[in-house]
Amino acid sequence: MRRQKTPDIVIRRLVLYLRALENIDNTDKESIISSYELSERAGVSATQLRKDLAMFGEFGKQGVGYNVNRLREEIREVLNLHRTYRLGLIGAGGLGMALARYNNRRYQTEDSYPFQLMAIFDNDPAKIGREADGVPIYDVKELSDQISALGLQLIIISVPVSVAQAVANICVAAGIKAILCFAPTKLNVPPDVRIHYSDLGLELRHLVYYI
Amino acid sequence: MRRQKTPDIVIRRLVLYLRALENIDNTDKESIISSYELSERAGVSATQLRKDLAMFGEFGKQGVGYNVNRLREEIREVLNLHRTYRLGLIGAGGLGMALARYNNRRYQTEDSYPFQLMAIFDNDPAKIGREADGVPIYDVKELSDQISALGLQLIIISVPVSVAQAVANICVAAGIKAILCFAPTKLNVPPDVRIHYSDLGLELRHLVYYI
Repeated sequence: MRRQKTPDIVIRRLVLYLRALENIDNTDKESIISSYELSERAGVSATQLRKDLAMFGEFGKQGVGYNVNRLREEIREVLNLHRTYRLGLIGAGGLGMALARYNNRRYQTEDSYPFQLMAIFDNDPAKIGREADGVPIYDVKELSDQISALGLQLIIISVPVSVAQAVANICVAAGIKAILCFAPTKLNVPPDVRIHYSDLGLELRHLVYYI
Repeated sequence: MRRQKTPDIVIRRLVLYLRALENIDNTDKESIISSYELSERAGVSATQLRKDLAMFGEFGKQGVGYNVNRLREEIREVLNLHRTYRLGLIGAGGLGMALARYNNRRYQTEDSYPFQLMAIFDNDPAKIGREADGVPIYDVKELSDQISALGLQLIIISVPVSVAQAVANICVAAGIKAILCFAPTKLNVPPDVRIHYSDLGLELRHLVYYI
């Protein structure tokens, strides 16, 4: 299966197809889904879905549809989701703690959720050295060392805007290539580092234009 | 200022410019920012920024830059952010509660954060009738009635996937036109309802492709 140079927009849609497939509560290993139904569940056109999947091989049969379990496994394979990833979280505030618990619950209850939260970082002496939901809270001064020591691969940033760039810089210098930022700001990272954002205020501000 | 038929992608960028302007801690009412610096802070090209702002009138002076305070006010005007919006949140779980507190803190501390959380909804008898961070928790059975009674305009959904579509349907039937969904699924809503999504698992799955 080809992985090189797949456009990012296709990768995004593959993740959407996978999520739709995972939300199908199927016990029957032979259950089939039509490209139309899957496209509806993913929020993508059926033509687009067929075209995307055709890029990676012959996943379905014309007029028959896709085997749910098999397609799920194939997409996981394409997206490298068959192994576990070591996740770190910076910022043990209210949102950070909720994200930690949310992630842990999914990691513990969903077989196919591959993100294991290994470490939380904060600068509050009252939190450092304790555990949150079973995950150790380290001094953010140890961030660089622990990224190496624990082999962290993905970082979630949920710190105030004023320190977000500084912690991102430490992550980048320590070799992190993928960051999910909940601080409501844009961060500067080198082109080989992938950063996604989630900002409640940004989404609400955008949404109200349509009220 | 024109508001009709502005492409959504332009609206999105206006929100990014506004966020960048709000993150500038300026006490000087006459401070000026160049289109280059603002574009860097927003993560958009300077050409694109100038083109976008030109759509709405003459905001800056060639070779001088933009007055930070004035541009901020002008963009707020375009985006209808000068009034307060009444927000409801469905799902008083860990993530929902963290979002409620996060929103409340921003509403209380930021002059220009216009989203007031009026009500939380849940189906847990242990939570119904109580308050969370000063916001009443209602029985989700009252959702439709309270949307009308409280004049809710925006809804955040943070419930399990299995019930997300059902609560969205109630919101839509009650006249809600803007939804922010944290449940990891795609929801079906009529074309005149705007829905945005935030899904931690989706973002992490997308990000690891680049590790």
